[in-house]
Amino acid sequence: MSFTTNATIASFGGKLLKLSHKAKSTNCDMNLNLYMPPTSNKKIPVLFYLSGLTCTGDNCSEKGFFQHMASKKGIAVVYPDTSPRGLNIEGEDDAYDFGSGAGFYVDATKEPWTKGYNMYSYITDELPKALFESFDNLDSQKVSITGHSMGGHGALTLFLKNPGKYKSCSAFAPIANPINAPWGQKAFKGYFGEDQQQKWKEHDATELVKNWKGKDLDLLIDVGTGDNFYKQKQLLPENFMDAAKEAGVEKNIKLRMQPDYDHSYYFMSSFADEHVEYHSKFLL
Amino acid sequence: MSFTTNATIASFGGKLLKLSHKAKSTNCDMNLNLYMPPTSNKKIPVLFYLSGLTCTGDNCSEKGFFQHMASKKGIAVVYPDTSPRGLNIEGEDDAYDFGSGAGFYVDATKEPWTKGYNMYSYITDELPKALFESFDNLDSQKVSITGHSMGGHGALTLFLKNPGKYKSCSAFAPIANPINAPWGQKAFKGYFGEDQQQKWKEHDATELVKNWKGKDLDLLIDVGTGDNFYKQKQLLPENFMDAAKEAGVEKNIKLRMQPDYDHSYYFMSSFADEHVEYHSKFLL
Repeated sequence: MSFTTNATIASFGGKLLKLSHKAKSTNCDMNLNLYMPPTSNKKIPVLFYLSGLTCTGDNCSEKGFFQHMASKKGIAVVYPDTSPRGLNIEGEDDAYDFGSGAGFYVDATKEPWTKGYNMYSYITDELPKALFESFDNLDSQKVSITGHSMGGHGALTLFLKNPGKYKSCSAFAPIANPINAPWGQKAFKGYFGEDQQQKWKEHDATELVKNWKGKDLDLLIDVGTGDNFYKQKQLLPENFMDAAKEAGVEKNIKLRMQPDYDHSYYFMSSFADEHVEYHSKFLL
Repeated sequence: MSFTTNATIASFGGKLLKLSHKAKSTNCDMNLNLYMPPTSNKKIPVLFYLSGLTCTGDNCSEKGFFQHMASKKGIAVVYPDTSPRGLNIEGEDDAYDFGSGAGFYVDATKEPWTKGYNMYSYITDELPKALFESFDNLDSQKVSITGHSMGGHGALTLFLKNPGKYKSCSAFAPIANPINAPWGQKAFKGYFGEDQQQKWKEHDATELVKNWKGKDLDLLIDVGTGDNFYKQKQLLPENFMDAAKEAGVEKNIKLRMQPDYDHSYYFMSSFADEHVEYHSKFLL
């Protein structure tokens, strides 16, 4: 369960640790980055950031600028990888939107992906346990989650499926209704099978929000109006909002359509400060 | 002299323009990025950012975090490329530290590099003229300069060689005494010739500061103590400070040795806010 520290990089007064560890759920070594803010607090809240298609934990560490506000607020940020790597499953590296780099934060139920495509268990269970065991200054009781695109889908679904596990949730350009979007359909067909509609719904934020039983949902979601994937209806944030309204839990959901912003890290970096500030209200 | 706008990307409330234009001095099409802050001011001050070895204007636009404070202050940022591209000079792509990606902000005097390796003229003359002609809301009277590594060398030497041209200058991990460092020696030997010692000195910040005739030099220079190129004596900022002291112009030079920081964009992004704020005192 212990981590190897492959690099320690100074960033915004704190340290970005490039870590790796042997993971059971994904059946391989996993890389991740952990940003430790400059604080003498013994218990540091933690924000998980889930990346989008094709990414590793490095993309957002380098381009997302979450460290800027995380440093000021004294919040740690975890940047996991997006899938297992090197499982030698036939076709795992053939597409940018399925297989390696595209784990979709689900536990696959269809062969051969069951061999290690269990990013749901890895992110919700194995990785946090390993982190809290190895870094005892991280506060296991104060954890929030955010993410981008496929990782925005991950953040929303992990939050909705695990009431109380995360103090808060936000998302950038999330795939908010994957069962009705090409990316999500391809992934769920591959990881679950075409006929597993119930399984599909269990990992669809729009379906999950329909059955939300808790108090009013508090969420911050940013989507750029210049985002080509939004235009191509891969994201469908309106479907999510409509479902939340139908369920009567939309009052504190802030869906902000950001004029002209695209799907890139230029978009995320522009609002990273605000997202970290949003989470800090629940974490501090 | 006019630019083609290849992309317009929303960033921190402003626009990052990906531009290209046909440049005479470098004998080829040049790419650059121009960040326009969200301001209604008719005259926008301009900060030139010169990149280091291997980079294009994209690296710092994506990873440098300059837009964050430039947006708040209402300062435009220009991110030029680091060399001509595609001149078909034999060997131009053979090394990371010479030829393409490594123009060193000099005008070559040695064949075959005279064909277009004229980044000094391009940055100090052709590019700003073209920009001020095409973007009449940029303030040609309020221009400052900064840069990283090879680009820190560029910023310091262009500032010192052109008193009054730039309102202020700062540098991140600059190659501050290239005639005494392997990178600089290789570049100057290649672009000027081994026997052109006078020419070498004309593009060495440490040599230039010895003869500084103006008022006290005001400079902000950050170097990380964990920077491997600093440790390998490629940067030699102490030589620059010693020369400034000998010349009696060191009073307002702030050389800050930043503990543990490396040579990467993690280092620059951590201090980009402070550098833009520093320049804003001279530009606003």
